[in-house]
Amino acid sequence: MRFSKAFIPTQKEIPADATIPSHQLMLRAGLMRQLTAGVYVYLPLGYKAMLKAMEVVREEMNAIGGQEIYMPALTPKSVWETTGRWDKIDVLFKLIGRDKKDYALGSTHEEIVTPLVKQYVNSYKDLPLAVYQIQDKFRDEPRAKSGLLRGREFSMKDLYSFHLDEADFESYYAKAREAYLKIFSRCGLDAIVVEASGGDFSRFSHEFQVVTPFGEDTIFTCECGFAQNKEIVEVGEGDKCPACEKGKIKKERSIEVGNIFPLKTRFTDAFDFKVMGADGKMKDILMGCYGIGPSRVMGSIVEIHNDKDGIIWPKEVAPFDIHLVEISGKNEGIRDAALSLYDELVHNGIEVLYDDRDVRPGEKFADADLIGIPLRLVVSERSMGEGGVEWKLRNEKDNRIVKMDEIHDVMEEYVKK
Amino acid sequence: MRFSKAFIPTQKEIPADATIPSHQLMLRAGLMRQLTAGVYVYLPLGYKAMLKAMEVVREEMNAIGGQEIYMPALTPKSVWETTGRWDKIDVLFKLIGRDKKDYALGSTHEEIVTPLVKQYVNSYKDLPLAVYQIQDKFRDEPRAKSGLLRGREFSMKDLYSFHLDEADFESYYAKAREAYLKIFSRCGLDAIVVEASGGDFSRFSHEFQVVTPFGEDTIFTCECGFAQNKEIVEVGEGDKCPACEKGKIKKERSIEVGNIFPLKTRFTDAFDFKVMGADGKMKDILMGCYGIGPSRVMGSIVEIHNDKDGIIWPKEVAPFDIHLVEISGKNEGIRDAALSLYDELVHNGIEVLYDDRDVRPGEKFADADLIGIPLRLVVSERSMGEGGVEWKLRNEKDNRIVKMDEIHDVMEEYVKK
Repeated sequence: MRFSKAFIPTQKEIPADATIPSHQLMLRAGLMRQLTAGVYVYLPLGYKAMLKAMEVVREEMNAIGGQEIYMPALTPKSVWETTGRWDKIDVLFKLIGRDKKDYALGSTHEEIVTPLVKQYVNSYKDLPLAVYQIQDKFRDEPRAKSGLLRGREFSMKDLYSFHLDEADFESYYAKAREAYLKIFSRCGLDAIVVEASGGDFSRFSHEFQVVTPFGEDTIFTCECGFAQNKEIVEVGEGDKCPACEKGKIKKERSIEVGNIFPLKTRFTDAFDFKVMGADGKMKDILMGCYGIGPSRVMGSIVEIHNDKDGIIWPKEVAPFDIHLVEISGKNEGIRDAALSLYDELVHNGIEVLYDDRDVRPGEKFADADLIGIPLRLVVSERSMGEGGVEWKLRNEKDNRIVKMDEIHDVMEEYVKK
Repeated sequence: MRFSKAFIPTQKEIPADATIPSHQLMLRAGLMRQLTAGVYVYLPLGYKAMLKAMEVVREEMNAIGGQEIYMPALTPKSVWETTGRWDKIDVLFKLIGRDKKDYALGSTHEEIVTPLVKQYVNSYKDLPLAVYQIQDKFRDEPRAKSGLLRGREFSMKDLYSFHLDEADFESYYAKAREAYLKIFSRCGLDAIVVEASGGDFSRFSHEFQVVTPFGEDTIFTCECGFAQNKEIVEVGEGDKCPACEKGKIKKERSIEVGNIFPLKTRFTDAFDFKVMGADGKMKDILMGCYGIGPSRVMGSIVEIHNDKDGIIWPKEVAPFDIHLVEISGKNEGIRDAALSLYDELVHNGIEVLYDDRDVRPGEKFADADLIGIPLRLVVSERSMGEGGVEWKLRNEKDNRIVKMDEIHDVMEEYVKK
């Protein structure tokens, strides 16, 4: 993508309405903009990063046997009445169609997926089953805030699993937990598994929390691995850890990037979903749900991976692989060298943002710092004089100059998956 | 994907509520199911095909310089008031948030994209610009019908282009038209470009229509290329063609799979979006919009590509590359041969639906015919006896048997892109 033709509206000024660093950076780097409270437009750079995060999620969900489906946002009142949640979920957006019927915009999809699976699954032989979707949720949050951290319309991956017995459920729940840690690790997020309330039907659910001073959650942790959400914790900061009985409890601010929840028979009972077992008797079905918000993950990545000059994307979710900066000063030889390098990279399947704009070098570097593509390549008069192109490699670990003849080796190492 | 674990609920019976062939086939092949009038759930097979159609659309939109963005469904009343469409669009779903404000669910996105682009584009140097999204639209259709052909919630690719003058607009419009024909051709659809009403602001818009007896549109065509929608046509069936003055006009039923529309200054004027030209004067901006519905494309593909036994997917949009049918009769040798072939294919990046179910061969073949993956591979006792696996190649052009040692050559030819 040539920067001169790209819709990447970067800005120097810190937007007045954004208070936390990730929100400021996402607006300044031209990733997104707010349409109305808690409702965002994703611009090309932001949407590219989000599609990459979605692909990571999709791969790991497929790896644990999840089958991708797609459920609608427009859902009839009747299914929410069956579970008693029409009046209970206060963030449900409700509307009336021309047919005079009531609808809700899905804030979650247990009410859709449970009768869907019930319709087709009649025998114990069809279980276990896990289906998921990557789809937009609507929640009429009274205080939509903090950029992508609490939206009224936001992307979500929600997986639902169905099991015949506790052991099978527990084993899948553990597998999903590992898959989640893998997703966050691939996205450059160091997530902690935190115990949270299990509602009426289970002792705990589990949240995946990323520690950051601007998080809106509070968690209590110990070095031994103990971690609980403030809603259920019974100790305070500095207390002796109730798990290892040695360490001291730390209190930290964090962002919730995912959660997994043992629903047990809460929804299968409501929809009277049972199957015939091998012994001819009707059996209860245990259910789990597993959520990750790709937009929230993106917000968290930006919150964690930045420095004073801008974002520093982890490789797997970077909107581009390489940021190619041409400093030509109208010199056609330099321009040609940059262009032919661009063509070669693109031809090799590498995604390149090529800054061919007619602006000052300082502006190009400032934008490159702000946008934060992990690898940067600079073609300038200086590098041409030395008979090679200077590759300035910049990421969290490294900041060095690579010569033209080394480019292909380094490319292998840094870019190829 | 192993069929025994797959969520592919095929059914023999023709569903009572589906009247047209594509709708019946999509339900019977387990591609989707209706949640409520005009609102569908896509099951794994259907969603896989739809993701492939979306990828074709994405590639061709990128090829004409479209930049992918993502706009929300939840949109504030104010933007619809600016264009006077809050009361004018009768299919607009409206709702009120907790904040007591009015919102509409986007039925189209001119009202969002125009002020978005206006915010960032200030100079003639930033134009032309083309942005698109693949996103769900909501339309409160009074008669939602015909499976995916008229839904109340449906996927849509909408591209919007912005230009400084008529010549640039016309040239892009022609490019988009070619891109559309390429998309339909890749999806196995033989689309005709049909002139339709241009509303108040332009002589014509253009629809892409696929001729089928179950289409809900009516078009009038001549062999010379003349084609008009019934809304604007001034001739009848059998009349002399007004274009070539030789051929006779044919009247045909068809499905609209896409449309492109010269919006000219209809929306840029409404939002007072002008830019400074090279001569320092403010210039009007011309706009075009270009729509394709991936779900409608999928419905049309199924409508066109089927025989009495089921769907026959075109290669590019088939949910799987190969349907591997194992007829083992509990023979472990055959089962092992099928499994190792499955592993090899998957390892080579080929998407395989492997029917490892413990059901009668007749049921496996009936499901394979119904689901319609273009290539079928059968591993049975007979093929083992001959020392090779029998590959039954079935698509619209071909129906033959390939021996094991030819498999890799044929695979290259048929599967690799």
